[in-house]
Amino acid sequence: MARTSIATVCLSGTLEDRLEAAAAAGFDAVEIFENDLIAASDSPEQIRRRVADLGLTIDLYQPFRDAEAAPPARFAAVQRRLMAKLDLMARLGTDTILVCSSVAPDTIDDDALAADQLRHLAVLAAERGMRIAYEALAWGRHVSTWEHSWEIVRRADHPALGLCLDSFHVLSRAERHTDAYEELASLPGDRIFFLQLADAPRLDMDVLQWSRHHRLFPLQGRLDLAGFTRAVLATGYAGPLSLEVFNDVFRQADPHRTAVDARRSLTALAGELTPAPRLNGIAFAELGVDADAGPELEAQLRTLGFAHTGQHRSKPVQLWEQSRARILLNAGAPTAIRAFALESDDPAASARRASELLARPLPRRRRDSEADLTAVAAPDGTEVFFVRGPAWLDDFLPTGELPTETRIFAIDHLSLAQPFDRYDEAALFYRSVLGMSDDEAGEFAAPFGLMRTLAIRNDDRSVRLSLSVPLLRRGDWAPAVPHPQHITLLTGDITQITGTVPVPANYVDDLAARGVQATTLYDEDAHGSYRQLFTPIVGRRVFFEVVQRVGGYRGYGFANDPVRMAAQRHERIASAAGG
Amino acid sequence: MARTSIATVCLSGTLEDRLEAAAAAGFDAVEIFENDLIAASDSPEQIRRRVADLGLTIDLYQPFRDAEAAPPARFAAVQRRLMAKLDLMARLGTDTILVCSSVAPDTIDDDALAADQLRHLAVLAAERGMRIAYEALAWGRHVSTWEHSWEIVRRADHPALGLCLDSFHVLSRAERHTDAYEELASLPGDRIFFLQLADAPRLDMDVLQWSRHHRLFPLQGRLDLAGFTRAVLATGYAGPLSLEVFNDVFRQADPHRTAVDARRSLTALAGELTPAPRLNGIAFAELGVDADAGPELEAQLRTLGFAHTGQHRSKPVQLWEQSRARILLNAGAPTAIRAFALESDDPAASARRASELLARPLPRRRRDSEADLTAVAAPDGTEVFFVRGPAWLDDFLPTGELPTETRIFAIDHLSLAQPFDRYDEAALFYRSVLGMSDDEAGEFAAPFGLMRTLAIRNDDRSVRLSLSVPLLRRGDWAPAVPHPQHITLLTGDITQITGTVPVPANYVDDLAARGVQATTLYDEDAHGSYRQLFTPIVGRRVFFEVVQRVGGYRGYGFANDPVRMAAQRHERIASAAGG
Repeated sequence: MARTSIATVCLSGTLEDRLEAAAAAGFDAVEIFENDLIAASDSPEQIRRRVADLGLTIDLYQPFRDAEAAPPARFAAVQRRLMAKLDLMARLGTDTILVCSSVAPDTIDDDALAADQLRHLAVLAAERGMRIAYEALAWGRHVSTWEHSWEIVRRADHPALGLCLDSFHVLSRAERHTDAYEELASLPGDRIFFLQLADAPRLDMDVLQWSRHHRLFPLQGRLDLAGFTRAVLATGYAGPLSLEVFNDVFRQADPHRTAVDARRSLTALAGELTPAPRLNGIAFAELGVDADAGPELEAQLRTLGFAHTGQHRSKPVQLWEQSRARILLNAGAPTAIRAFALESDDPAASARRASELLARPLPRRRRDSEADLTAVAAPDGTEVFFVRGPAWLDDFLPTGELPTETRIFAIDHLSLAQPFDRYDEAALFYRSVLGMSDDEAGEFAAPFGLMRTLAIRNDDRSVRLSLSVPLLRRGDWAPAVPHPQHITLLTGDITQITGTVPVPANYVDDLAARGVQATTLYDEDAHGSYRQLFTPIVGRRVFFEVVQRVGGYRGYGFANDPVRMAAQRHERIASAAGG
Repeated sequence: MARTSIATVCLSGTLEDRLEAAAAAGFDAVEIFENDLIAASDSPEQIRRRVADLGLTIDLYQPFRDAEAAPPARFAAVQRRLMAKLDLMARLGTDTILVCSSVAPDTIDDDALAADQLRHLAVLAAERGMRIAYEALAWGRHVSTWEHSWEIVRRADHPALGLCLDSFHVLSRAERHTDAYEELASLPGDRIFFLQLADAPRLDMDVLQWSRHHRLFPLQGRLDLAGFTRAVLATGYAGPLSLEVFNDVFRQADPHRTAVDARRSLTALAGELTPAPRLNGIAFAELGVDADAGPELEAQLRTLGFAHTGQHRSKPVQLWEQSRARILLNAGAPTAIRAFALESDDPAASARRASELLARPLPRRRRDSEADLTAVAAPDGTEVFFVRGPAWLDDFLPTGELPTETRIFAIDHLSLAQPFDRYDEAALFYRSVLGMSDDEAGEFAAPFGLMRTLAIRNDDRSVRLSLSVPLLRRGDWAPAVPHPQHITLLTGDITQITGTVPVPANYVDDLAARGVQATTLYDEDAHGSYRQLFTPIVGRRVFFEVVQRVGGYRGYGFANDPVRMAAQRHERIASAAGG
């Protein structure tokens, strides 16, 4: 894999915090963002030593603004400013400076002048063995496309002047990516001095605001980072893959976590990875159950038709079964979805891929006689096991109890609320580690604020995960259930399900006004319909949902989440009051 | 003042929470948003009783979507749906339903059909003594302007069909407001059935997203709510002024606080208010000083040239003076800017206006012999006093110490960081209560996340306040100084100031590269230049800034805030390590 680099501006904290985080996540290099340097109290020499001690190099100093196509009267000041920055770069020990296309109102629309001035600047850089990477900002005054910046670089024709390509600036403007790729791939690779990578969601807004607030790491957004990177690498470009991501959330999140997320995105994009083995369903979900929650969760499972069929040989873990749905209750842990296991064609390869993608491996939880379950930790701490076949069931001694019901026949999906600043990281983690792809996404107004939801699934939909997050980090007002989680169970006949929270009559009346007769939550898509019921929340986080999919409905009923949340809150308040 | 109303969608919580908050803030009425009703467990009759018990009425049920210009085959279902909603409205005890212009892909571009169908629906409503308010959504499929909606209402010509006007939908599209106002004002007022008010910042983005996430209460944004409201009231419209504000932050904030903010916005917009008396400067700023912070703050004041000139007759409050700058240290309170006093031409009128604008009055803090200081609480709890002349100084017994220095001659401004969800409320509060206007606004990348800053000032700039807020509510990672505050002191010669935190050498070098020689923070505008120094933070929040304004510079140097914050953090870490 190519060298990896990250701009200091991607991370939160002082410059020192950021450098440490980049090194700890295994980056080879950093781009030093000028504002981060200017605010730092350490001298350039101290920063240079620190970077070297951390095993990093500084591969770029950036940005240098409003350099080219300046009115001649201002150009002398530009040259003096560049000289000062080249001095600074010598002290920092870096040799490449990014010049971004001018935005100043006095910029002249004259390619010949731009080329001439950039050649002058390149001469100054070359005198010190340095070089200039020229980048077209998408909102540049006269130069706003990479083709235009290349035209000027070609015209200036100096060996110390090359291009900086930034995926955001190229892809945010490109209407037809594939055409751009052909042209990009025909560039001489040695004239590309630097490659910056950023993804982004597709937003219909001012491109400058989009760029400054909403960039994401590769594969977290909707730009075609894979195609773009392939095209640039096809030129023979041999420099680093460097991340330059301006993101409101990352700017205030723990930089060590963000740096790992960032590094994972580059590995997923360009690394040589173990292919993701085929997954064949959710083997089990494991709930932590504290002393208070145990009886209520057991009662809910029994009412849903589950039987307590097994007891773990060495741990306080119960196995509950009904048809293919298997749930473990792990006594003594906080009440939450603590773990889940996926059926993998090759558990060892699944775990190897996870480790290549910087998943934190978990210590094995086994004794000699027990099955060797391979597990990694997801960003929110959930343990993900990979198993093959039913061998893991041998760790449980039969209780003698057997399931007699078949109202529930499988786990349909798991819903995992994510901490506010780890949502994009979690989505990338599950997508890349498990080789899954995005399914339905939703945004809805919950009683205590807007929520976003994203479902991720494997090809045959045997594994589905739904991630949710509040749009804003919640304050004190939002009550009770900060990170709800649920196990969604599949039934063939939802009329057989009892023990669930009443669906509000106002909701049922609204369905009727729309011509739908149902007393459950209801949704439909082009393929079929969906009915949903749900239990009260146990403890502060966990509940069960039961769904029936009719005629190949593919969604998750996200639009009903606010109704479900309000009904659960009503039920909580009523049962707290009524006993 | 007209009746005041608020849509339940403006507030956070269950429907019950929202109704309570609206009533507590003094609204006359609510709009019931359909999704809030559907998710509620209470029956329509229970909600009706609850609303009446709270002294409210329900003035609108909304929205009814995709009604008009439907393909005839679908229109039967529209009529059935409307009948069901009219039944519901009868149970709720409300008589007006909002029909918003259709967005469905099958909507037909045919005004005659739209008018015909709306007349049919109006007949159904009229049979029950109800009526339909038709609103053009800015993103309606074929009807997206109020002029177009009026054309259709006129054509349909039924007394139970009128217009709903929404300031956002009108002003977000209007290029030339004044033209729109003339036309608006010529409408027959009795054909306007409902008036919804929402402000918004000017954002260059998809109008649907802008509307759904970024609306604000009147006078909090940049739309011309005053002109719009005047134009509509000029028609003779006699219905309520109703707020319909979709805002990500308000949706998750304490609804009682938000409802007061909302009610204040309507009063500021349309109430009959005591005119704001002229303000003539900041008489004093009062710092709470806990036991740890006392010696350090006193030492900082002494180093800056202040003298401890007075001691309060009855309280542990010190008066420190230098020229016109006066600072009180109030021992035993948490270290923070606890209060400030403004010189008012008429303190009683200032306080009356504040109370009309729902400012929380504060109990008088005086004894018989002492000055009667009139005070209200700002949204962040800061106490705002109104004084006239130097009489308040009589509460302090002279210590005998006298200021010998004149390095500082006044308080330039106060900087008050706001809690994350109270920023727009605070800006509206200071703006409306004090009769001040917006000055410079900034957004900058601080070391631990993006910050927004807004300065508010009176006409002659003798009173300036700077408000700041992190763009996102901070999580655990952001350290140490969650809500910094500072008192900015004005000097005539910044070279005389000592005891401040060193400005980073990298910053000074960058200034030099730009041709500016300075060892302070530096800014310039069209009028002049600005130099800034600052002390270390005392406790967790407070410090002093000293500035020199040269040649009429008008700004606040916001762009330097990240450098100042990084330097203060460096100083904190260094002094914690070095002792």
